[in-house]
Amino acid sequence: MKLYSYWRSSSSYRVRIALAIKGIDAEIVPVHLLRDGGQQHSADFFAINPLRQIPALEIDIAGRRHVITQSLAIIELIDELFPEPPLLPATPAGRAHARQLAEIVCAGIQPLQNLDVLTRLDALGVDRRSWGQDVIARGLAALEATAAPLAGTFLIGDEVSVADVVLIPQLYNARRFHIDVSELPLLARVEAACLALPAFVTAHPDNQPDAEVSQAR
Amino acid sequence: MKLYSYWRSSSSYRVRIALAIKGIDAEIVPVHLLRDGGQQHSADFFAINPLRQIPALEIDIAGRRHVITQSLAIIELIDELFPEPPLLPATPAGRAHARQLAEIVCAGIQPLQNLDVLTRLDALGVDRRSWGQDVIARGLAALEATAAPLAGTFLIGDEVSVADVVLIPQLYNARRFHIDVSELPLLARVEAACLALPAFVTAHPDNQPDAEVSQAR
Repeated sequence: MKLYSYWRSSSSYRVRIALAIKGIDAEIVPVHLLRDGGQQHSADFFAINPLRQIPALEIDIAGRRHVITQSLAIIELIDELFPEPPLLPATPAGRAHARQLAEIVCAGIQPLQNLDVLTRLDALGVDRRSWGQDVIARGLAALEATAAPLAGTFLIGDEVSVADVVLIPQLYNARRFHIDVSELPLLARVEAACLALPAFVTAHPDNQPDAEVSQAR
Repeated sequence: MKLYSYWRSSSSYRVRIALAIKGIDAEIVPVHLLRDGGQQHSADFFAINPLRQIPALEIDIAGRRHVITQSLAIIELIDELFPEPPLLPATPAGRAHARQLAEIVCAGIQPLQNLDVLTRLDALGVDRRSWGQDVIARGLAALEATAAPLAGTFLIGDEVSVADVVLIPQLYNARRFHIDVSELPLLARVEAACLALPAFVTAHPDNQPDAEVSQAR
């Protein structure tokens, strides 16, 4: 199994966490989103994923090679193929809650502040930091409010779920935009609980083969 | 079951299609996103969904009332509770493919051109039409390329799936931005096949109780 990944990409980070939680030792293939005009635009990578996007998971399923993109689709697949420990609750209502929390991040926050949008904003002369701060802060507040009634040690009770898997990379992004995460007490507390777990440490951007320690965050 | 919906909201439209495919006669509760400063901001609606977002599904599951937001989370729930006809393929690889197609639309296109973003762009003096055309056209091209290898009558073979459920509302949005959908032959062909099905007709914005026939599209 190969994961095409960029160390600071929050959607790659999500998939790395899911793989680490399941104990899957996938090969990390770094794709540098900025170098060489963006390595995701290379002919080599186009042959892997014509969408020119990471993350992309290359995986054999039932004897056939597949490339799956889009982080939640990848995480649901991993959870189906490797059920333990589960990343979704055991009941339909619980799964719906987990998926709505994940979707708040993956559809409601991250797409509005990813590299593509920031590049568009730069070209239009719009201040990317102010835009990013606003969409992230508003989305995280919505996440905190929606998660609160059923939260425990983690966003949903006392077991790690897909909601935590996507939260931690979004908080990493929030800090890159200089947002004070401590103003969101539930999310800050859950983050501390997650970052104490080995899987989240393994998956962290700083611990990737392509991490650039000298670069400002 | 109650669906809080706005006739032209593409994420509401997705859920309406899924409900109609399953033959579920949910009560449609209109929430006007523009009138009264946006009825989603009212105190009444806040009591339903503190996220102030539609769609929101109010549903009893195992004797308890739940409100679930986020369209894909709602659709996955509907598909779990009402399995026939299925909206996801029968194999893990098939489901991963369906979910990645849906995510391309729901995380990769629609969030970049929804009402909130367009309002932000207006306030910044950015031309919303040019922005919307660009993000939609690029996203739909990616969707067409990703769907092509496994497409049949519909986006995945010859059965309607969640990928079709989210495609049709996105093409409706594309037309509001004056995009020529005929330049995407696969998507245009699948759209015609879907719009011939009663469920897609029932769910269409023009056939909603809150449709405004006089308004320009």
